[in-house]
Amino acid sequence: MELSEILSELKNGTIDCAEAEKLIRVAPYEEMGFAKLDSQRKLRQGCAEVVYCSGKKDEYLVEIFQKLYKINGEVLGTRASMHQYELLKQYLPDIVYDEESRILRIEPKDKIRKGKIVVCSAGTADIPVAKEAIHTAEFFGANVTPLFDVGVSGIHRLLGNLDVFQGANCVVAVAGMEGALASVIGGLVTCPVIAVPTSVGYGASFGGLSALLTMINSCSNGIAVVNIDNGYGAGYMAAQINRQSVKDN
Amino acid sequence: MELSEILSELKNGTIDCAEAEKLIRVAPYEEMGFAKLDSQRKLRQGCAEVVYCSGKKDEYLVEIFQKLYKINGEVLGTRASMHQYELLKQYLPDIVYDEESRILRIEPKDKIRKGKIVVCSAGTADIPVAKEAIHTAEFFGANVTPLFDVGVSGIHRLLGNLDVFQGANCVVAVAGMEGALASVIGGLVTCPVIAVPTSVGYGASFGGLSALLTMINSCSNGIAVVNIDNGYGAGYMAAQINRQSVKDN
Amino acid sequence: MELSEILSELKNGTIDCAEAEKLIRVAPYEEMGFAKLDSQRKLRQGCAEVVYCSGKKDEYLVEIFQKLYKINGEVLGTRASMHQYELLKQYLPDIVYDEESRILRIEPKDKIRKGKIVVCSAGTADIPVAKEAIHTAEFFGANVTPLFDVGVSGIHRLLGNLDVFQGANCVVAVAGMEGALASVIGGLVTCPVIAVPTSVGYGASFGGLSALLTMINSCSNGIAVVNIDNGYGAGYMAAQINRQSVKDN
Amino acid sequence: MELSEILSELKNGTIDCAEAEKLIRVAPYEEMGFAKLDSQRKLRQGCAEVVYCSGKKDEYLVEIFQKLYKINGEVLGTRASMHQYELLKQYLPDIVYDEESRILRIEPKDKIRKGKIVVCSAGTADIPVAKEAIHTAEFFGANVTPLFDVGVSGIHRLLGNLDVFQGANCVVAVAGMEGALASVIGGLVTCPVIAVPTSVGYGASFGGLSALLTMINSCSNGIAVVNIDNGYGAGYMAAQINRQSVKDN
Amino acid sequence: MELSEILSELKNGTIDCAEAEKLIRVAPYEEMGFAKLDSQRKLRQGCAEVVYCSGKKDEYLVEIFQKLYKINGEVLGTRASMHQYELLKQYLPDIVYDEESRILRIEPKDKIRKGKIVVCSAGTADIPVAKEAIHTAEFFGANVTPLFDVGVSGIHRLLGNLDVFQGANCVVAVAGMEGALASVIGGLVTCPVIAVPTSVGYGASFGGLSALLTMINSCSNGIAVVNIDNGYGAGYMAAQINRQSVKDN
Amino acid sequence: MELSEILSELKNGTIDCAEAEKLIRVAPYEEMGFAKLDSQRKLRQGCAEVVYCSGKKDEYLVEIFQKLYKINGEVLGTRASMHQYELLKQYLPDIVYDEESRILRIEPKDKIRKGKIVVCSAGTADIPVAKEAIHTAEFFGANVTPLFDVGVSGIHRLLGNLDVFQGANCVVAVAGMEGALASVIGGLVTCPVIAVPTSVGYGASFGGLSALLTMINSCSNGIAVVNIDNGYGAGYMAAQINRQSVKDN
Amino acid sequence: MELSEILSELKNGTIDCAEAEKLIRVAPYEEMGFAKLDSQRKLRQGCAEVVYCSGKKDEYLVEIFQKLYKINGEVLGTRASMHQYELLKQYLPDIVYDEESRILRIEPKDKIRKGKIVVCSAGTADIPVAKEAIHTAEFFGANVTPLFDVGVSGIHRLLGNLDVFQGANCVVAVAGMEGALASVIGGLVTCPVIAVPTSVGYGASFGGLSALLTMINSCSNGIAVVNIDNGYGAGYMAAQINRQSVKDN
Amino acid sequence: MELSEILSELKNGTIDCAEAEKLIRVAPYEEMGFAKLDSQRKLRQGCAEVVYCSGKKDEYLVEIFQKLYKINGEVLGTRASMHQYELLKQYLPDIVYDEESRILRIEPKDKIRKGKIVVCSAGTADIPVAKEAIHTAEFFGANVTPLFDVGVSGIHRLLGNLDVFQGANCVVAVAGMEGALASVIGGLVTCPVIAVPTSVGYGASFGGLSALLTMINSCSNGIAVVNIDNGYGAGYMAAQINRQSVKDN
Repeated sequence: MELSEILSELKNGTIDCAEAEKLIRVAPYEEMGFAKLDSQRKLRQGCAEVVYCSGKKDEYLVEIFQKLYKINGEVLGTRASMHQYELLKQYLPDIVYDEESRILRIEPKDKIRKGKIVVCSAGTADIPVAKEAIHTAEFFGANVTPLFDVGVSGIHRLLGNLDVFQGANCVVAVAGMEGALASVIGGLVTCPVIAVPTSVGYGASFGGLSALLTMINSCSNGIAVVNIDNGYGAGYMAAQINRQSVKDN
Repeated sequence: MELSEILSELKNGTIDCAEAEKLIRVAPYEEMGFAKLDSQRKLRQGCAEVVYCSGKKDEYLVEIFQKLYKINGEVLGTRASMHQYELLKQYLPDIVYDEESRILRIEPKDKIRKGKIVVCSAGTADIPVAKEAIHTAEFFGANVTPLFDVGVSGIHRLLGNLDVFQGANCVVAVAGMEGALASVIGGLVTCPVIAVPTSVGYGASFGGLSALLTMINSCSNGIAVVNIDNGYGAGYMAAQINRQSVKDN
Repeated sequence: MELSEILSELKNGTIDCAEAEKLIRVAPYEEMGFAKLDSQRKLRQGCAEVVYCSGKKDEYLVEIFQKLYKINGEVLGTRASMHQYELLKQYLPDIVYDEESRILRIEPKDKIRKGKIVVCSAGTADIPVAKEAIHTAEFFGANVTPLFDVGVSGIHRLLGNLDVFQGANCVVAVAGMEGALASVIGGLVTCPVIAVPTSVGYGASFGGLSALLTMINSCSNGIAVVNIDNGYGAGYMAAQINRQSVKDN
Repeated sequence: MELSEILSELKNGTIDCAEAEKLIRVAPYEEMGFAKLDSQRKLRQGCAEVVYCSGKKDEYLVEIFQKLYKINGEVLGTRASMHQYELLKQYLPDIVYDEESRILRIEPKDKIRKGKIVVCSAGTADIPVAKEAIHTAEFFGANVTPLFDVGVSGIHRLLGNLDVFQGANCVVAVAGMEGALASVIGGLVTCPVIAVPTSVGYGASFGGLSALLTMINSCSNGIAVVNIDNGYGAGYMAAQINRQSVKDN
Repeated sequence: MELSEILSELKNGTIDCAEAEKLIRVAPYEEMGFAKLDSQRKLRQGCAEVVYCSGKKDEYLVEIFQKLYKINGEVLGTRASMHQYELLKQYLPDIVYDEESRILRIEPKDKIRKGKIVVCSAGTADIPVAKEAIHTAEFFGANVTPLFDVGVSGIHRLLGNLDVFQGANCVVAVAGMEGALASVIGGLVTCPVIAVPTSVGYGASFGGLSALLTMINSCSNGIAVVNIDNGYGAGYMAAQINRQSVKDN
Repeated sequence: MELSEILSELKNGTIDCAEAEKLIRVAPYEEMGFAKLDSQRKLRQGCAEVVYCSGKKDEYLVEIFQKLYKINGEVLGTRASMHQYELLKQYLPDIVYDEESRILRIEPKDKIRKGKIVVCSAGTADIPVAKEAIHTAEFFGANVTPLFDVGVSGIHRLLGNLDVFQGANCVVAVAGMEGALASVIGGLVTCPVIAVPTSVGYGASFGGLSALLTMINSCSNGIAVVNIDNGYGAGYMAAQINRQSVKDN
Repeated sequence: MELSEILSELKNGTIDCAEAEKLIRVAPYEEMGFAKLDSQRKLRQGCAEVVYCSGKKDEYLVEIFQKLYKINGEVLGTRASMHQYELLKQYLPDIVYDEESRILRIEPKDKIRKGKIVVCSAGTADIPVAKEAIHTAEFFGANVTPLFDVGVSGIHRLLGNLDVFQGANCVVAVAGMEGALASVIGGLVTCPVIAVPTSVGYGASFGGLSALLTMINSCSNGIAVVNIDNGYGAGYMAAQINRQSVKDN
Repeated sequence: MELSEILSELKNGTIDCAEAEKLIRVAPYEEMGFAKLDSQRKLRQGCAEVVYCSGKKDEYLVEIFQKLYKINGEVLGTRASMHQYELLKQYLPDIVYDEESRILRIEPKDKIRKGKIVVCSAGTADIPVAKEAIHTAEFFGANVTPLFDVGVSGIHRLLGNLDVFQGANCVVAVAGMEGALASVIGGLVTCPVIAVPTSVGYGASFGGLSALLTMINSCSNGIAVVNIDNGYGAGYMAAQINRQSVKDN
């Protein structure tokens, strides 16, 4: 209810001051004691709240998944363990788990996906992060085309697949080590590129810092960067851009 | 000309092997000796090449601006000095300079702008970077609404202006010091947010590193980050997203 | 005994030179061989010495707890393991353990608490550090109101609870990842804010460094920062400020 | 006006819906085009907005000082240049400038100061930052006792002045290089200590980073840290604590 | 003279003990008081000592250049100022100065160059460092082919010039900002690549650190890295490799 | 097949347009679903693709080794576990494993090695990295002379072995802790030196960063640096240089 | 044998050229294949070589200990495990192990110690590093007085023990966290202070980096610093200084 | 006067309580308002206080130099400008200035120097720091032998001068860039080595950080490190060690 409506209803006597105050002040979250569940995010931001599973206690996790599933009819969980999957499966039998990306998904079978996102990764070790981006983008309504193992040390692999980028509304570029993939792609495509540095590497890769700096300093246009290993964040933003870019949305 | 066309013409005898080879190998740039001007970027990427003016020699700058203006009918220059403006004005009298953001623009008077981008900045010292983003986004065809001085230390200034974000296809959030603005905005809007850390601050701000880390670690969804003080990069990507988001494009 | 008193007594012959020298030089600690227990800190600083339990040998830990309990009638232990709790419980049956914050408390049942401190945390993963602050502040005589899960990515959760801050003498703001919570609170309350960065996060959070930098660079007034995950230090200082602020102390 | 009052007046018909909406949404700042002046901060937070002068344009600076002086009857400016002082003196003849700390103050002659703060500094080179803290704390109503040149390399200078700390409600400890002063003081006093690292030093002091880390890692209780060279921030928070600690406030 | 020869001559009585001791201990450098000139490096290492000019006093510089010219018949000076060039020109009229790379060269007109090195640079701002590499490699006897402005943001510029690498014994890849050029080239050529990060960039490029990390973490084979802006070091090593690679050397 | 040949054959009618397009666009890699195997690298770059074994799934590893062995008749695997060795031995009985360097080698018994590389290491703890370099260089056709435990803290051990460097085409210098070995060797030999920092050390060695910085800042000529612990990379590049340096290659 | 003696003997015919060459070139170490044991260090540097045990293979460790014991009649081992102690005890039954500092010592029972070193530590957690320094200094002939738990947060514990420093030739100051102990001691004593930062701490102590920076930036005179946790290095250097300082040495 | 004496005199009635208290509490420094001059340091620590001149106001500098000269008959000033020298010369005509090291010295002509210190530097650019060490060590009573330009890139220059180290009580090793000099010297001499990293270098030398890390991680025994460019600190500590080592002191 809009503020002007609330005030009108108060003026009209439909509601009294206490009710009006409560409505204006109403907290758009569900108090669970240990957390304030953002139950109205789907309404407010167009995307339901997502559960970061890592480290969550079993009973909390079950409670949160059940509540969100009830509200939204779908739940996405990130950084989930096999144990958490097996636990949740008892309560939500339709839940699906991808061990590589540690993603949990439960969603309507007939969810419609639109548009196109390309998720590229540089090396095979970057695939788990790339898959986190893919699952997230699909969950939020995007068609996703993966393109793995196209790192710049053998650039013919990327150049031989340029047609994959045709029609993409957003590209997610996932790379560890020196992270140069994003810059090269940025120079080849016309849509925005979300760059995801990964912690893949050793020595002076410093847990992904090197790839992060590479991507932040990219001399190509149309590139922005998310946190190290944050496939989820890239997939979310790519889905936002994709949704806005689909003509009939 | 597409590869298949070239091959067909060769087959048909319209062109010979040497011509075909040249066409396939053709370098889509203009060799200037000191630089390889990306003269076809507008065709290839939808945006003309932009001139990073800082440190360019006078004669090179004039030559590049003239060539790009001839090809594209418009030029955007970043990090330009007053001296460079005065120099170029002799050759390109319609060129416009914004001293605060150090942007040079020359473009058709009747350029049509579409959609909506909001460019927010946290403090008054962040305005030059914000203006670089604004000029860039406008140059690449976006309508831009500025919202300055809405840093989180007085959050009522931001909350009192939430209606500004209505209808935006992208938000650019510019902030130095602790750079918390992007996270707060990320939680309030439904469109993507491009975060720009600035070098504003002192002591442990480490030239913008602190703000960069804040933004990269943001717990809000739909945020990606560009380099410190890179208003241009944010404006470019925001314009990309905006262009894709406009329904009748 | 004050220096002037000691000298007067010497002058008067109540004590002799050796006694006077000993009194002047007296070491206000208890030598335990492996440690110098600050047995008079409660007198000197108003707060008894606290035991950092992590890594302490069993026999040492028991000895220290028993001695401090004898001197002060209460002991606070931080970073304690379940094993250490079970060990100490055999000697001090009234000891209480909070597994989440790893705090050990033994104190008089009728301890009076005064004033008001609010301890806020950004995410559920920050709760252990927040609880360390709460236990510490309570141990040192403050009433504490917790306010969890009010991170800036959903700022309505914080704004919907502003009345919680009414009457607080100090706020402790606990946050990991980008750590923006402290700045926002700093702009909303009139009392001092102690900011505690946590090591919660991944990638470029660098074990809490990112949140630490955010808080140190805060553009809000009235914020000072303690070490990463140092809930104890924040709780201690908040209790100091609270104690000084209570009118009838 | 409180929300409940506004709603009551609407209910009573004293105001209409439009007025009520405006009052609820009212922005407590003054729009100046280039800035949003927080004109009600004194009411809201107990302290008027302070002007960070460095880099402000002359005309803006004059306008801001005049407006704040009109609203609050006093203004504090930090990081001001001699030129800015001379400029403002033309409009506000009573303004006072301290060249060392670069502080501008204009305030009622009969301002009452209460309580006690001690501001210590380690070396003579730290004095400008210490003075920034002193001016700020005085401006916000505290009595301040300075204690300069008591660095730990000659600890007898500090130990010979312990009586200075008697009755202090807060200590500000300012030190560069290795920044050990705060830890030593923290172990000697009973009130909170605000530690200010300074950029004084060379080589591995890394512009104050070393002192900042020392202070953040302090093993003493009751210490919290502000940004490098942030004498203002320390003075502000010390004044807050002092104000709360004065019995008859 | 070899050790065995010295000992034989001593045995034979050609020299006496003192002479033998002196010959064994002889310092292969020329003591100049302020420096120990490595006058025999050309014999020992195949390359004459090079003069790092920056900051050298005028009289020292002249003395060193004259001495080295006398010994070797050629001198290379790096990081020289225009003033130093003008000074040295009075004594060594054949000296040549390249203002962009700040290189001073004096050498025989008929110096023979062999083999082939390619020196690539990413952006126009990297050219000074690239030229330092070129002058150095030429001075040490290599033919050098420059290839400028082939940064990865427009990779067609590099791919359109792949034939330039034909027959190269070593490639020097010079790049600032994100420094991705070396990785891409490393995947395209068969000879070793010496990567030179430059300090070109801003924000999170941290004076070349970002490019350095990119290059050190390169996933391509056959790449090793020298210091930031160290065109000299890369040119020297490339010339070493080239000299060894020329068949008839 | 060269481009000109393809075009001639098309012109001649030997192939049709579709075939020509396929040949031009042909991806010189083998798509394996999970990876794009660079099957033609031996032809293109003179060295077959090497398998980074760490973390590879069993079935993938077996498949890759078998395919590469079939194509090239030899395979080199790095960072392999004992388990992986035992697995692969079932399929490729001739495979050899060095537990210290974790290298897997399978190659023709009569492989001819040429030239000379010296691989030095500073301490005994650096030997695993040195051995990775040795195995790699041997695999790619070089004769290698090891020289272990010649760190600079007892420089007589290095100086007593200078004759080992006679005739070397490249030196690999492997050192952790302060990493000074490379600089000293760089001043003693005439051939290029590839420096490998190792993660050996503790405290301020920061996982090899200290040694990396030492080597990058080396004041000796003819030194370039690879990543921390990257014995493979150094061995590869040394073999490249050695191969080019052998007269009759 | 001195060089002049060797040459005289050659001249005199006592030895021939081959013998002379061998004596001049003689490597003052024992080649063990896996290591070059510095068997003559005791003669050359006054202190026998010490064994860094961590990670050494069992058979190597036994061989090295036996050889060094045979040469020097004493051995010091650092960073040894309980397992290594039990292993070596079978071969060298007189060996002694201190579990806390992980030091192995075998030495003559009647070793004479001279002079005086004081080894101070800040907290109880710093004791293992302090004990490494103590064992090392004793092994190399110094009397050592320990002074534990005198950190600066309760400076009366240090000040009450100033008489301990009387007559010391060197002080070793061991401290983690903020590491301020060295600066305070440096201002109180007249002899040199060797500062040892430890990795004790959490959060922003960054594994001892904070304490290292504090000590390197110390404003006190007569302080130099060794690596984090390097009790051995401090004990060695303190013993050197002590040995030089004893009047009748 | 010792504490026992004071107490005896009080007991005897020679002094009264007030006098006794004053004597016990007496501050061993001279209050100068802007500073607390440590006038008794020469008595307490054996070395007079030294003046860090950089940034000191003219009037303060003159006052301090005059007071210290009056107390001690000698003064050492560090980091002094030519202007400061000319200023002080008017008041203290015997003052001597070394422009390179920026040291000011005024001392008795007949000061006796004892023992021997060697101060080595790696490159000519390190000489100013080396000279600061030399002047300081001489001022505090040591004979000093300089040995310049013996960096490890041409190690024969160092090895050819080993006899210089004969009889030294301490070596100061000054080096920038990779800072390897200290490690090599540490393995060659028997006395303690004080290592001084310098800010000489560029790129990844990071203002001396690289050299500092090299020295802190040195694998040689008997090395400790002072701050970057801190020639004074090294000279002071070397003089301490030298003074203690001279047999007849």
